[in-house]
Order: sequence, then C-alpha cells, then structure tokens
Amino acid sequence: MLKFAQFGAGRIGTIHATNLAAMPNARLVAIVDVNLPAARALAQRCGAQVATTAEVFANPEIDAVIIASSTDTHADLAIAAARSGKAIFCEKPIDLSLKRVDACLAAIKKNPAPFFVAFNRRFDPSFRSLHARLTRGEIGTVEQVIISSRDPALPPIAYLKSSGGQLRDMTIHDFDLARWLLGEEPAELFAYGSCLVDPAVKAIGDTDSLMIVMKTHSGRLCHINNCRRASYGYDQRIEVLGSKGRLIAGNQTATTVERADADAITTDKPLYFFLERYADAYRAELAAFISALENHQPMPVGAHDGRQALVLAEAAIKSLKLGRPIPIP
Amino acid sequence: MLKFAQFGAGRIGTIHATNLAAMPNARLVAIVDVNLPAARALAQRCGAQVATTAEVFANPEIDAVIIASSTDTHADLAIAAARSGKAIFCEKPIDLSLKRVDACLAAIKKNPAPFFVAFNRRFDPSFRSLHARLTRGEIGTVEQVIISSRDPALPPIAYLKSSGGQLRDMTIHDFDLARWLLGEEPAELFAYGSCLVDPAVKAIGDTDSLMIVMKTHSGRLCHINNCRRASYGYDQRIEVLGSKGRLIAGNQTATTVERADADAITTDKPLYFFLERYADAYRAELAAFISALENHQPMPVGAHDGRQALVLAEAAIKSLKLGRPIPIP
Amino acid sequence: MLKFAQFGAGRIGTIHATNLAAMPNARLVAIVDVNLPAARALAQRCGAQVATTAEVFANPEIDAVIIASSTDTHADLAIAAARSGKAIFCEKPIDLSLKRVDACLAAIKKNPAPFFVAFNRRFDPSFRSLHARLTRGEIGTVEQVIISSRDPALPPIAYLKSSGGQLRDMTIHDFDLARWLLGEEPAELFAYGSCLVDPAVKAIGDTDSLMIVMKTHSGRLCHINNCRRASYGYDQRIEVLGSKGRLIAGNQTATTVERADADAITTDKPLYFFLERYADAYRAELAAFISALENHQPMPVGAHDGRQALVLAEAAIKSLKLGRPIPIP
Amino acid sequence: MLKFAQFGAGRIGTIHATNLAAMPNARLVAIVDVNLPAARALAQRCGAQVATTAEVFANPEIDAVIIASSTDTHADLAIAAARSGKAIFCEKPIDLSLKRVDACLAAIKKNPAPFFVAFNRRFDPSFRSLHARLTRGEIGTVEQVIISSRDPALPPIAYLKSSGGQLRDMTIHDFDLARWLLGEEPAELFAYGSCLVDPAVKAIGDTDSLMIVMKTHSGRLCHINNCRRASYGYDQRIEVLGSKGRLIAGNQTATTVERADADAITTDKPLYFFLERYADAYRAELAAFISALENHQPMPVGAHDGRQALVLAEAAIKSLKLGRPIPIP
Repeated sequence: MLKFAQFGAGRIGTIHATNLAAMPNARLVAIVDVNLPAARALAQRCGAQVATTAEVFANPEIDAVIIASSTDTHADLAIAAARSGKAIFCEKPIDLSLKRVDACLAAIKKNPAPFFVAFNRRFDPSFRSLHARLTRGEIGTVEQVIISSRDPALPPIAYLKSSGGQLRDMTIHDFDLARWLLGEEPAELFAYGSCLVDPAVKAIGDTDSLMIVMKTHSGRLCHINNCRRASYGYDQRIEVLGSKGRLIAGNQTATTVERADADAITTDKPLYFFLERYADAYRAELAAFISALENHQPMPVGAHDGRQALVLAEAAIKSLKLGRPIPIP
Repeated sequence: MLKFAQFGAGRIGTIHATNLAAMPNARLVAIVDVNLPAARALAQRCGAQVATTAEVFANPEIDAVIIASSTDTHADLAIAAARSGKAIFCEKPIDLSLKRVDACLAAIKKNPAPFFVAFNRRFDPSFRSLHARLTRGEIGTVEQVIISSRDPALPPIAYLKSSGGQLRDMTIHDFDLARWLLGEEPAELFAYGSCLVDPAVKAIGDTDSLMIVMKTHSGRLCHINNCRRASYGYDQRIEVLGSKGRLIAGNQTATTVERADADAITTDKPLYFFLERYADAYRAELAAFISALENHQPMPVGAHDGRQALVLAEAAIKSLKLGRPIPIP
Repeated sequence: MLKFAQFGAGRIGTIHATNLAAMPNARLVAIVDVNLPAARALAQRCGAQVATTAEVFANPEIDAVIIASSTDTHADLAIAAARSGKAIFCEKPIDLSLKRVDACLAAIKKNPAPFFVAFNRRFDPSFRSLHARLTRGEIGTVEQVIISSRDPALPPIAYLKSSGGQLRDMTIHDFDLARWLLGEEPAELFAYGSCLVDPAVKAIGDTDSLMIVMKTHSGRLCHINNCRRASYGYDQRIEVLGSKGRLIAGNQTATTVERADADAITTDKPLYFFLERYADAYRAELAAFISALENHQPMPVGAHDGRQALVLAEAAIKSLKLGRPIPIP
Repeated sequence: MLKFAQFGAGRIGTIHATNLAAMPNARLVAIVDVNLPAARALAQRCGAQVATTAEVFANPEIDAVIIASSTDTHADLAIAAARSGKAIFCEKPIDLSLKRVDACLAAIKKNPAPFFVAFNRRFDPSFRSLHARLTRGEIGTVEQVIISSRDPALPPIAYLKSSGGQLRDMTIHDFDLARWLLGEEPAELFAYGSCLVDPAVKAIGDTDSLMIVMKTHSGRLCHINNCRRASYGYDQRIEVLGSKGRLIAGNQTATTVERADADAITTDKPLYFFLERYADAYRAELAAFISALENHQPMPVGAHDGRQALVLAEAAIKSLKLGRPIPIP
C-alpha cells in the first residue's frame, strides 16, 4: 500500500485525489493547500488529513507526492520531494521557464526519484490504443501526424495572462503527443498564429488560433492546429498516415443516440471539455504511475518528456516572433 | 445490338427508356403508350418511334420488350411477347392476382421466353454487395434477416385504392429481398398491420404500418417493418445475422458533409425516394437483363420470383385478416 | 446516510456492492451469502460485515436491502424485507413463476415498502437519453419500436437449464424496454423461436433465436429479436419510429480508433458483454434507487414493471407452444 | 444547342466527351488528337468527327472548345480559341510556367472569350455543398481550413518527370480549394516537403509528401497535407472551422455495407481514385460551363483562378527551396 500526499486541492487536485481514493493499492494521507477550506473539504471527502509542506516532506511514511498546485510551485516541490526520497507525480508543465526546468532536472539528478509528468492525453483510451497499434506496426512506418486540438471556449483573460501563452499552456499537450506519435524528435518547426476569437487576446500579446508544422530528421511531417474556442465542444483528434494505412482517433460523445428528422441526421456533439473527455485518462495515468512504482519500472512519461514539450513550445514562440522556421536544439 | 420496344411512358418508363438510351449494346426502337403525347415526348428524347402494341409484336426486328405500363396490362403483354418470341423485362408485380399470375406463367410455359421481373432492389450496389458477401460465406450461415422499408410520404388515397394494398404494393419488394437473403423459402409468416399515419387509409381497408415475422423450414427468422411515411426520407435498410457475424446495408445520402455546432453533429438525411436511391439499381437491372440475353444465361430474377413474392403478400393479407400465422404453400 | 444490507456476493452482487461503496450518501453494512468465503471477500473489499439473513432483518439500523442472490430466493427475501420495513432493490426477475410473483406482490401490499426492480437497461445513458427525447416529443407520436438484443456467446447448458428459458431469462429485459418505450401496454404478441446456435439448447426444450412482434391497443407495433450468440460482441440496440422522425441508440465501443488500409475501414466492435456495456447503467440504477428513497419519491421501476415483463414472457412462451398470437391479460 | 470541339482523346478527354454526349443542350461535333486511332474511336463513340486544329478554328459553327490535350498545348490552344471567338473549357493547369500563363491571359484579354479552368473538385457534390453552407454563414466566419489530399499510389517516375513537380501537379488542386474556401487570398505560405514513399522521387528532385501552412491578411489559417500514396485509396477531405461551428466533407465509398465480426466493424474504404471519386464532379463542371455560356453569366472558375493556384504553387516551391515563408505577390 503506497502512501500519498498531494499538493493542491483545486480542480485538477480534486480529480487526482478522488481517483486515488478509489484505488485499492494506494492511500492519500495528506493534502496541502494554502486555501485551507478547500484542503479541508477535499481531505474529508477522501479520508486524508490536512498537512503543511514541511510535514509532508518530514513524514517518512509518505512514499509519493502528487504536485497539483499552481504551476510556479511545481519545480520547487519536485526538488524537495526528490530530496526527501519521495516519488513524484507532477502536473504539466514542470515550469513555464526552460531555465527553471533545467535547474529542477539537475537538482533531481543529484537525488534521483521516480518522476512522472502528467501528460494525461497519452492515457486517453483511444489515443493509447492508436499508439499501441502504431507501435505494433499496423500501418507500417509513420509518415504524417495531424493533431487537432481545440478548447470549447476562451478562458478568462486573467487566466490567459498568467498561462505562459497559448503555446506553453495549450499546445504543449500537442507537442508531447506529436513526439510520442512521430517516433522521432522534431528537427525543425514553423508556426503561424492569429487572434481570431477575441481582440482582447491580441491586447495581451497572445494568440488564440495556431497552425504549426514540424519535420523530423528523417523527413516525417507533423501538423498541429489549435483554437481557444470551438462552439461544438472539446475537439481532440489525432490522425496518423503510415506507409500501409491510416489511423484516426476521434472525439467522444455522451450517448450513441441518433435522430433522423425532416432536416438531417443528428448525433451528439463531443464531450464538453477535459474533465469529461479525459476522465478515464486521469484515472489511467495515476494507475500507470502507481504500477510503475510498485513494479520498480521506469516512468512511462518522465522529466525529459516534460522538458522536450517545453523546448518545442519555446521554438514555436520564437518562430511566431521571427517569422521563420526554427531548428530544435 | 439488341432492339427494344417499351410499353409505358410514365415515370418508371422514362427511367428505363433513358437508361437504355445510354447503353452501347441495346437500342430502344419503339414506345407504346395510350397517352400519345407522353409516348411522343419520350420517343423523341430517346431516338425511338411511337408504335402500337400490334406493330411491336408484328415487328420481327424487336428482340425484347420492357413492360412498364399499368399493372393490369403486365400479364397480357407478357403472354403476347412470349408468343411473338420476344424476351420480357417486366415491372413488378406481374399482376395483383395470383390466379392471373399463374395463368400468365402457364401461357409463357407454352412459348418459353426469357422473363425478367424487375425487382430493382436486388441491384442496389449496397444490397448486391451484401448479398454477394453472404454468398461468399463472410458471416457463416444466415440466421436472422431484418428488413426496414419506409416510404417518405403517404401517396394519394386514389393511388392506394388501386395499389392492391400495402402488402401487394410495398411489402412485395421486401418479400423478394427476404427470399433472396434467407437462402431458403419462408415456411410460415405472421403479420400485424395498423393505420397510424392517416385514418383515410383505414377507411379504404388498407394499412400504413406493418410488422411481419417469417420462419423458414430450417428455423431461420426474418422480420420486415414497413411504414408509408418516414419524415426523414426513404428508409431502406437490411441487416443479416449469421453464425460468424453481421452484415448491415444502410441508406444513402447526397453528400458526406457533417456540421458540428453548439447543438449537435448533423449529417445528411437519406436520399428522398426511390428515384434517387435506386437510380443506380435501375441502370444495373437493365444491364443485367441485357447481359443475360446476350450471353444466353438464365435471368437473375425470373417469373417464379415474381410469383413467390406475391404468394407471401397473399399469405400476409390472410394473416392480417384471420389474426393467425399462415403456412406458405 | 442510508444503510444497506445485500443478499448475494456473486458477479452481480459484486457490481452493486462496489458501486454502493463509491456513493457518498449510502453505506453497505452487511453482506449475506451461503458461500461464506465469497461473502467475506466482498465484505472486506467494501468495508461491510458478513451477516445472516435473520441478523439483517432484525437490525433496525438497516434501511434498505439489495437482493442479488439466486432467483428462487428473490420473492421470499422481498416479502421478509417488506415485513421488517426495509426498502427493496431487487434484481430481475422477481421470480420465474408468475404465481409466486403475484403472491409476493400481495404480501408486500400488506406491508408496503419501496420496491425497485433492477431493469438496468433503462439506466443505460444512451437508452435513457433516447427515452427522455421520446418523452419530450422530439419525434412526435411513437409508432414502431425495434429492439435488437444479442448476447456474445451461448452460456453453459447447465445455466440455461435453470434460467427459466430464453424468454424469461433474456427477452424479459427487452419486454421491459418495449413497455417503457411504447408508452402503452402491448395488447397481443406473437413469437417465433428456433435453435440455430446449438442443438443442445433444443435438447433441453429451449430456444436460442427469437423473433417477436407485439401490438398495442392503439395499434403501435413492436419487434424484438434475440440471439444467444453474436460473434461480434454484445449487440444492444433500440430504434423508435415516430410520426416526426426516428431515434436510434446503438452499441458502445472501447475506443474511437479507426484504421484505413488496403482492405477496408475498421473500427471497434461493440463492448463484449453486460459488465462492460452496462457498467454506467448499474451505477445509475443504484443512484436512482437511493435518490428516490431520499426524496420520498415513487420508484422509477417498480414491482408492477417486474410483473408485467414476466406476463409478456409467459405470453410469448404460450405463443411459441401454441403457434398463435396471444392476447395479453 | 451549343456545338463543341474537343482537343485530346485521352483519359480525361474521354470523360468530358462522353459526359457531353449525354447532355441535352450541347453536341460534340469534332475531336482533335495527334493519336488518330484514339481520336477516331472516341469520335465514333460520341457521334463526332475527327478534325484538325485548323479545321476547328476555321469552323464558325463551333461555339466552344474543350482543351484536354497535353499540358504544354493548353495555352496556345486557348489563345487560338479566343482569337476565333470560341468559348474555352480548359483542363488545369493553363500552363506549368507562370510566365506563359500570363502571356496567355494577356493574349486573351485582347480577344475576350469565356474562359473556364476545370478545377473539378469545386464541383464535387460534397465540397460544393460545404462551400454553399459556408457562404450561407452556417458556421459563422471562416477561421481555419484543413485540406487532406492523398493519391492512392505513386504514378510512374516518367510521369512525375514531366508533371512540373508535386506542388504544380497535385497541390495545385488544393491551392485552388484553399482560395475558394478561405474567402480571402493567402498572404504568405510555408512548406515542408519530404521523400518518404520512394527514393526515386528524390532522385528526380521532387517530393512525395508535403505539409503546407498559409495565412491570409486577416489572419485566417490554412493547412494542406499531400501524399503521393495512400494504401487505402483516394483520400480527399476538407475541414473548415468557423466562429460558430465546423464543417467536414469526407470521402465516398462504393457501398454502405458494414460487417461486424469477431475482430471489428468493417466498412468500405474510399473510392479508388479521381475517375471514381470525381465522376459526378466532371459532369457537374461541364454542366456549369454550359449553363454559364447559355445564360451569358461569368464563368464560375476563371483564368484568374487558374493563375492564382499556380502562383501559390510557385511560392511553395520557393519556400521548399529557401526554407522560409514566402509572401504571396
């Protein structure tokens, strides 16, 4: 039985804590949040105790920590966790600054600890199945990857201001999927960005619409498109063209009900947003972390993956700024 | 080059005549219709001549006739065609009376002629493919057949009055499909009928809604459902359950366009009615008739098929009337 | 907080007990099973105690019982539960004998207790949504209902022998759905049954393949088809034709992955069986029971529903035996 | 009745000539091809005469010409047709050299003639419907366009050598679609190209795999992906994201047959290549040309459209060569 502490009792923290509560081989014992009422409510709901950061790291009974607090705290908490010998399940991104990410990874290298970066989409049942079938060679060699990723609605401008920008906040997930699916590191990328959804986004120097192309050393091609608003719900699709065929993973719907009437055939639109669409993925990623810990296996998504997705986001930011393709270091 | 005469210049006659005009190995030379302006217009459009019935049967150059005139004339024209040695492409049904059908078949037995009964649905590309795959054993042995067949809108009551009733006019197509797909003759059937669409249908002693079940000697099961009105268009679907799988053939749409919006995903409803849905089937059945003639092969759908579909319709009428299952003679 | 005891620690009992364990407003306190190791294992997993039947009914703290033991014990346990003032969540069927069901209902009438009959399919998200949309009038008046229900593989003959036969064991679910969807009681039905899957089924006097048609007083029509074996998985579909349109609810798949290759486009087959397909439905039906209890509302599926599904099954058995349509009393 | 002459009796010429033969308001009177047997065979099939180029332009009875000869003859024939006062239906591209295209357009300006450039895809029923719905504002303002266009199999290297390269030969269709769908001219583009299908393509300095991104002045984004080989058939899809929704037009299949078996659900792969997929589009584009001529309306796709698609191809070639985004003049 693995004992967990969790930093963060917000939206994503609630998901992880309740998922953990339902797992037979792990137990959440401590929750830390500066918002004490939120910490208390979640702790009560999950049979855990409210604790301070210091208490967590001083407690030798705690095997692992879930870092689901605000982004700017991820790196420091990860370093501290490694120092006190605890396994780390860290929400993405490790940090918005590549410099700080590198500092964090260097610190952890001195106190090696299992480090899982929570790129939840890799654990979506459809994406996971698609990847497994790619790996089995079902469509031969990968040649082209197309990722469509659109949020249902523009978040508040206040959120966007502290998000690190669309590329670091939103596309970072797609960069991770692209690396995972291409089977090779991108060697170069080029990005176009626009403000088509709301001029307020432009006013804060960000984009709401993006199209990116990437190329690997062997010439594999990848396209990512993003939009901060899709009136029809959370649009999350992957297409891979291989030498022997094509794999597509599409959206999920609440029901299979189809209506035919005098106008058209009508079916459900996609599930509204990540809480609904990736509910299974959140459960599966935590189970994968626990399974790797229990079986002393390498983490399926690690610190290097967290770093590389940010490297691609940084390159895309540079491409937008300079208006030219950027080689990936 | 086969030379054709055609009886009937109405809606279905126009389809056959224009299809024939586009075929390289056949030529329509004569059109007969009591409605002379209609005959003339169609003749001109197809490069044929208007003729009388007597002229057609006296003309030794004519190889084959298409009987697309009113139902009550089919049997007599078929007999006369056989007597004058012409091949027969006959619209369904041969006649609404089984007695007259039997008299017709007996007369033709004395002057054997190739006799094709135009059950167009057997030539629909999807149904044809489904049948071919059944025959190839793709799903093992046939166990259950389900046929859904619904017209877009109730025809005029005047038409219904002379139609022979829903079972002889509409279900007869489905009875033919059922025999073709079951791979065995039905041994017994049972029918429920209702008037749900329009009470005027009840007033003339007919039904507008039907559900039929049939059983073959070896125990294979079949269900047919019919409705004279489907607000969403012409609904024509087949499902076959076999020992190793299931085959389904669905409706056709005008385009593949799909719209996603804040309410739903929306796609095209089915094509409106038989002229659109079975356009390919009408071409294919005529080509099949010509090919069988040219290659001296047996007709793919013959007089016996025309008779048996009517036998099933008669049994279903009896079942509705007596409220019990009826053995098929 | 409602306190529950549960009879039965088998497959379906395990589902209910673990679902209950995850619900915030209810607690499983006691589990009864003659198979003591099974009872102990499940009790431990859910934080409950092993108890005897007598202990459960003597315990005034227990508010409700889940009857998930063998079918022949349902009626007696329900009567005892009502006598001791406990609410009843009873697995279907109440009993295989209509006589015993009536005796049970009469006994409960004397000691009225909330009685929920667990027709899980009514709580499937797609079926539930379809029914809600029907009720909202999305397709006008119901005219035809078609239910396809096929199990993935023939169960052991030993199971079939004590199952009450295909109509009481399998079709009973579809009879319940039919009543729910038709919005009217069936007035008459007719059934065809065959043994096409395995002659061993015939040897025990049962069927493995069924086609049923039903008619309501106002003329609405319903078709049910059943098979004990569908090589492609659990096939559970509903189609309703209304005066203004059609609603269809289809199967569910594990992923949305689609492969295109030189042969075809390939997608997931349906989920394998009821444990997978109806996992959400099992959770939802228990939540509905608890919600009705908490809010002192009538049970959404009650004893009368349990009885009527059996009445239809009995009529269908009679129809198979006598070879004629049977009026529903 | 419009009288036509046609240059070219090859594959595409045969399509146009036989489509024309079936149209009631036009007649093909002359066919010109240096391959005399091909010209004779097609002429006979369509009831036309074999003629020389000079005869065609000297014949005042000829109203319009179809230019379906080899690409290098298009411009000269178009100029000559304009000079002799004939309307022009010209296969794409007008020429592979922008300089020659401009010379051609200048020459025609002096002898204005109706000039139709045969971008057949605009007349595909699904693409046409999608465009009409865009124009009607069904999804609000266009924001992103994604075009996937893949051929089933690599053509012979000999063909590729004289094709002008993948961008001028294949992507030119997608550039035309992009302009049509974006509702604005692209202001800049960037292209990645690879040889992944066959190294022989690299040896002749061409690509077989492409990913392109484009941006309009107002910031609308477009992605095109191409491949010279898709094992599953001709892959031709369009997706448009608008402010109020999304429209997708997909591939077409030969049948609607779906098979379920122990492995998967299987449906038809896309139609094999352009002859099958765009059969309707070829008919519709010719009908649109004739209709515009008869009604003295502007050509729905004109010389400027032919030129602009080539301008985009030239820019993409430059982008591939220089490795940077290219502004569109």
